Amino acid sequence: MAAAEIGVIGLGVMGANLALNIADNGYHVAVYNRTSARTAEFAANAGALADRVTACATLEEFVSAIRPPRPVIIMVKAGEPVDQQIEALKPLLQDRDIIIDAGNANFRDTMRRFTALEGTGLTFIGMGVSGGEEGARHGPSIMVGGAEAAWKRVEPVLTAISAKYEGEACAAWLGENGAGHFVKTIHNGIEYADMQMIAEVYGVMRDHLGMDAPTIAAVFSAWSTGPLDSYLIDITAEVLKVHDAATGKAIVDVIVDAAGQKGTGRWSAIESQMMGVPATAIEAAVAARSLSAMRAERARAESLLGLPARQDRRNSQEVIDDLEKALLAGKIAAYAQGFAVMAAASREFGWNLPMPTIARIWRAGCIIRSRFLGEIATAFGADPDVSNLALTPAFSAMIKDTDASLRRIVAEAALNGLPVPALSSALGYFDTYRRARGTANLIQAQRDFFGAHGFERFDAEGEQHGPWGGTS
Amino acid sequence: MAAAEIGVIGLGVMGANLALNIADNGYHVAVYNRTSARTAEFAANAGALADRVTACATLEEFVSAIRPPRPVIIMVKAGEPVDQQIEALKPLLQDRDIIIDAGNANFRDTMRRFTALEGTGLTFIGMGVSGGEEGARHGPSIMVGGAEAAWKRVEPVLTAISAKYEGEACAAWLGENGAGHFVKTIHNGIEYADMQMIAEVYGVMRDHLGMDAPTIAAVFSAWSTGPLDSYLIDITAEVLKVHDAATGKAIVDVIVDAAGQKGTGRWSAIESQMMGVPATAIEAAVAARSLSAMRAERARAESLLGLPARQDRRNSQEVIDDLEKALLAGKIAAYAQGFAVMAAASREFGWNLPMPTIARIWRAGCIIRSRFLGEIATAFGADPDVSNLALTPAFSAMIKDTDASLRRIVAEAALNGLPVPALSSALGYFDTYRRARGTANLIQAQRDFFGAHGFERFDAEGEQHGPWGGTS
Repeated sequence: MAAAEIGVIGLGVMGANLALNIADNGYHVAVYNRTSARTAEFAANAGALADRVTACATLEEFVSAIRPPRPVIIMVKAGEPVDQQIEALKPLLQDRDIIIDAGNANFRDTMRRFTALEGTGLTFIGMGVSGGEEGARHGPSIMVGGAEAAWKRVEPVLTAISAKYEGEACAAWLGENGAGHFVKTIHNGIEYADMQMIAEVYGVMRDHLGMDAPTIAAVFSAWSTGPLDSYLIDITAEVLKVHDAATGKAIVDVIVDAAGQKGTGRWSAIESQMMGVPATAIEAAVAARSLSAMRAERARAESLLGLPARQDRRNSQEVIDDLEKALLAGKIAAYAQGFAVMAAASREFGWNLPMPTIARIWRAGCIIRSRFLGEIATAFGADPDVSNLALTPAFSAMIKDTDASLRRIVAEAALNGLPVPALSSALGYFDTYRRARGTANLIQAQRDFFGAHGFERFDAEGEQHGPWGGTS
Repeated sequence: MAAAEIGVIGLGVMGANLALNIADNGYHVAVYNRTSARTAEFAANAGALADRVTACATLEEFVSAIRPPRPVIIMVKAGEPVDQQIEALKPLLQDRDIIIDAGNANFRDTMRRFTALEGTGLTFIGMGVSGGEEGARHGPSIMVGGAEAAWKRVEPVLTAISAKYEGEACAAWLGENGAGHFVKTIHNGIEYADMQMIAEVYGVMRDHLGMDAPTIAAVFSAWSTGPLDSYLIDITAEVLKVHDAATGKAIVDVIVDAAGQKGTGRWSAIESQMMGVPATAIEAAVAARSLSAMRAERARAESLLGLPARQDRRNSQEVIDDLEKALLAGKIAAYAQGFAVMAAASREFGWNLPMPTIARIWRAGCIIRSRFLGEIATAFGADPDVSNLALTPAFSAMIKDTDASLRRIVAEAALNGLPVPALSSALGYFDTYRRARGTANLIQAQRDFFGAHGFERFDAEGEQHGPWGGTS
């Protein structure tokens, strides 16, 4: 009888670590990689786990090694390779086998694949996995979308390998078809915003306060015991501390300032636009990465436009204290936007996404894990249907507490030419959102003037038009 | 022999006005509307132009009334109705007839329709028309995409009906297939940004300086003779002046502050994201419209969060002078972004979009027409391949002149809780763009730390990884 309880296809760093994680948790795992040299290498390095790993040179061998009904995790490059892998697997699998795509798929592809397998006897699960290499190896956050019955069958192994937050597994079924990959996409969009805001705060300390990397590292270290306590703050302190042996400088100072991106930030922005829900913090972060990649153009712009003259600045510690609170305020906006986008998607795709659960499974394992997510879990737990995080008691109190700091940082950065696009998008979001009487009345008047689009009046029902006189 | 030289299908306000414009220019036009009562009404009101209008009750009659090869303009609601109309026309038309979609189509639909008609003998043109009702009647800006040979055949009538800028027709062929509708989409995206920035400036005057609508109108009127001279500034002054007879108030003060949107702003944002080109001013404008529509939520947010305490403010005239320059600076960012998106699309879709021509045909007829567009036309005329408007001599000088005002306005608004999301996105864009050494080095360090994504070093070739020690 076949020994393996589950299979993993694709032994890149994420797939390999996931397979080791599975074996580590007492499951027997079959593995396969297109390049079989990689499979052999993996098996040779499996060490103490080798007796729970069956390395397979062919896909046929791989499928035979797994006990039916087979859960097969695919961890290959998102896109076309996933479709190819599914096609290759289909003739080999049998009724009730489950194909699990654990890559960073676009959820629209996941929905298409889910539908394509309906009626074949095979089941498809789209599974978002966050936590990087380390998470994959020792416990990622796992966001599952697909048929609930299929989830039930793989729940034991997926909860076993997932991160734990105070003993609670950071793995959950979130809804049908594309729900898991959608939530993972928004997770990554929030991650973009989080990272960009940290980079903006770093820029203020470096370029405004004139602090060097180790000194900035100490600030982030100090913050990591306060309300900003999170993995991203920890690793920021960590990387800022690292010395480069070759140059004797801080390593961040020899790293080129051109950020890569793999698409999930952009997808978040696009889906938010399609849903009509503002996600300006994510958009600002994606834009900042795109601009970062245009290094030659930026150098030319600086030589042409120069940087603005520096204004008087406040005492450094005052600025640093404001930066901490500004970063927290910015985070609130980014998460409020991300959760609002998920709520809209949940309605649009009929997923019934469980907001408290999403916050809970993000508390450990994933890149954005933080104390803050515990507070979000609590807030949504108390009021799962609240339309915006900012309207919960805990977060409205936090906004009131951090608001003035965010204002001072945005103002000081504006006057001194320091780019804080994500933090100022957060402020613009709150200031638009918290104003009962906005300025869109003027926009409605203009639209009616030039296009007869109509407007509403406070004192009448239905669509109205203005007495614009001889002009239209 | 059939008398009409061209046909118009769809007699809503835009289609009807376009037909009258055609007749006004000496062309004989056949018209048809799905609801024939509307066709009859149109014919009855054609007045002096009636002898150049053939009103048709059926599509067959309509097609027979046009001299082959027939140019047929469709001006119906974008989307499904356009496809239905094309299907209905196809069996009635013959070789070399041209179907022209003049609605606000998504350019991806236009590309699909263009391709679907290839080889049928029929030709498809996607034509962006801007100028609202008034423009359609007396001269819109016309952006044409499709086969150049087809354009040549309709060029006389389209240039005749278009707006003229110092005698030059604001109609042009911009490229194959979807080029015209793409450019129209970005036009509308820029229009969103332009209108939002005007609304933000209005908000500062209303809510910060405590000015009433007629007083604000006078400011916009004064600006309309300076560098902001534009249709949108003119109509802003116009609508702010209008009194509401029923209440005795300024009409803007009885209009509900919830803005509508028809999708082109959103499309601009989505396409910009797909192209990886920042369009944060457009994104901020779309977000502001979405937030404006959430009136109940905003009222709740204000009651929970309150508005920040007002800070000392400067002399009103100083603020107003800064607002004028800030608005100009914001416009530069919005247009620089819009043109950069078009440049990227031009490369991606092989259109070879003529930037100076686009700026030229926007100088009259369309909603964003302005003196400013004349300056853009000149700047691109001198350097059509410049990668960003901000890098041209005229615009870099303008940025230097307006920069400090934009900074002061963003700072003052931030401290006083006035929402200026589009203006601050403009500042964030410039401040990121003009800084040779950004902060993405930190992002690259983080990404390598948690995901082994690699980074570049200034002093080495190829992808590098950090010495992150025992952490990964």
